[in-house]
Amino acid sequence: MLSERLTQYSEWTEAKLAELLSTGERAPILQESMAYSVFSGGKRIRPALCMAACELCGGDAQDAVYAAGALEMIHTYSLIHDDLPAMDNDDMRRGKPSNHKAFGEANAILAGDGLLSLAFYALSLCPDSDALSAIAKGAFEMVMGQSLDVNSGGDESLLRQLQDYKTGALFRAAVSAGAACAGASAQQREALVRFANAYGMLFQITDDILDCEGEASALGKTVGKDVQEGKTTFATVYGLERAKEYAKTYAHEAREAVLSVGGDAAFFTELINYTLTRKS
Amino acid sequence: MLSERLTQYSEWTEAKLAELLSTGERAPILQESMAYSVFSGGKRIRPALCMAACELCGGDAQDAVYAAGALEMIHTYSLIHDDLPAMDNDDMRRGKPSNHKAFGEANAILAGDGLLSLAFYALSLCPDSDALSAIAKGAFEMVMGQSLDVNSGGDESLLRQLQDYKTGALFRAAVSAGAACAGASAQQREALVRFANAYGMLFQITDDILDCEGEASALGKTVGKDVQEGKTTFATVYGLERAKEYAKTYAHEAREAVLSVGGDAAFFTELINYTLTRKS
Repeated sequence: MLSERLTQYSEWTEAKLAELLSTGERAPILQESMAYSVFSGGKRIRPALCMAACELCGGDAQDAVYAAGALEMIHTYSLIHDDLPAMDNDDMRRGKPSNHKAFGEANAILAGDGLLSLAFYALSLCPDSDALSAIAKGAFEMVMGQSLDVNSGGDESLLRQLQDYKTGALFRAAVSAGAACAGASAQQREALVRFANAYGMLFQITDDILDCEGEASALGKTVGKDVQEGKTTFATVYGLERAKEYAKTYAHEAREAVLSVGGDAAFFTELINYTLTRKS
Repeated sequence: MLSERLTQYSEWTEAKLAELLSTGERAPILQESMAYSVFSGGKRIRPALCMAACELCGGDAQDAVYAAGALEMIHTYSLIHDDLPAMDNDDMRRGKPSNHKAFGEANAILAGDGLLSLAFYALSLCPDSDALSAIAKGAFEMVMGQSLDVNSGGDESLLRQLQDYKTGALFRAAVSAGAACAGASAQQREALVRFANAYGMLFQITDDILDCEGEASALGKTVGKDVQEGKTTFATVYGLERAKEYAKTYAHEAREAVLSVGGDAAFFTELINYTLTRKS
């Protein structure tokens, strides 16, 4: 059930992304480098959350497909820029060379800039002003989170705030935009934002845990990098056991919040369980 | 007259930019690095074109102030990213250290990403869907131009197309968005786009000429860099004399186009003359 709906949402998102990326055909290397990272086997969680939130609030998933495409382009741009030598300096992403390794640094910077610009062009094609506002806010908060991360010097007291911006912001944007595309009530949107806050923490904590004990082959990236580099993560600050407890607590919070929206929330509850026990 | 209106537009833009940048207060270094480049004495040509286009089409300049602020943030982000070591590797900008020299490369990448995101957040606060669409298209085309520049290997046949994207696109976005904020007719918008196409070329050609014979003290950046680095510009490809002829031709085209909009176009014609004879 979960995997079927993820596959369906993903197919709709892929089709829209292919259409949107064709805008870049007059700058072939830009188009190629954007497509390289956009079509590299991402799980499309943010588009799925956006379309599922739209359906949960009584809308048609297709109403949210431009927002879904925009969210995935914003997520992808953030990965490309995060991987740059001046940032996290990651050579691998999703099991293949990261964008700057494949296309060089200048083209990777531009691939990110292009995707971020194109995301907002996508939103202008299907303008729901609340969806635009939610996604622009999420995109900006994500940059704030990355800035705190780059400059915090591993300050543990900033960890939650930082991750709330880095990871939570785009999940909030996804469900808010999806709800907006369905014309949801303020109450439904608030409940979905509470879900996203908790789900974002769950997602980040399980990501940190995977960095410690996951398998490189399943993750498509280097394992143990956080500890090696002395990074401040939920796993390194609290230890694996407490991090796993936190993950369960946030999973519970996320479940409660999404059930309070009303309607069939099976997709969300299954996604929460999947994330809590994920291997990649 | 020209300088008074430029000053007025600039003051309105500064006020809106200060308000918009306060959004970043919870990530102090991001906010500081964005403000460093945004408030570094730019001439605010794009906001001025946006507000003047709005007025020329019968609107109030204040209707276009969010679009004007967004345009300046997008212009500033493009300068920050263009100056990066992996791109043009410029140490100076507007007479002071470029953003990555002042804040480091990671913060400069993020300052650009933050400004681009915040620009679209600004547009979501005052949503005119045509203005959003014009600005998003301009932002994307600008990236296409930069990509062609980085990858063209100095191919002269690409020069016009490349500069049309790099410089023209944001001028087109400025007048289109301004016109949209005034509810202009399709005819008015088309005439303004023709103006922007010609004015963009005029602006770029005079910029190339200044790089050859301008004074570093007036420009606030290195002079003669294009020739030194073997860059393909209008001045290096056609020589100074022919480049100056082209500038006059485009000035003429720009004048004709803006006069065909109807109304008092004095601001535009004076700006064209100013640009044709500019020293910085």
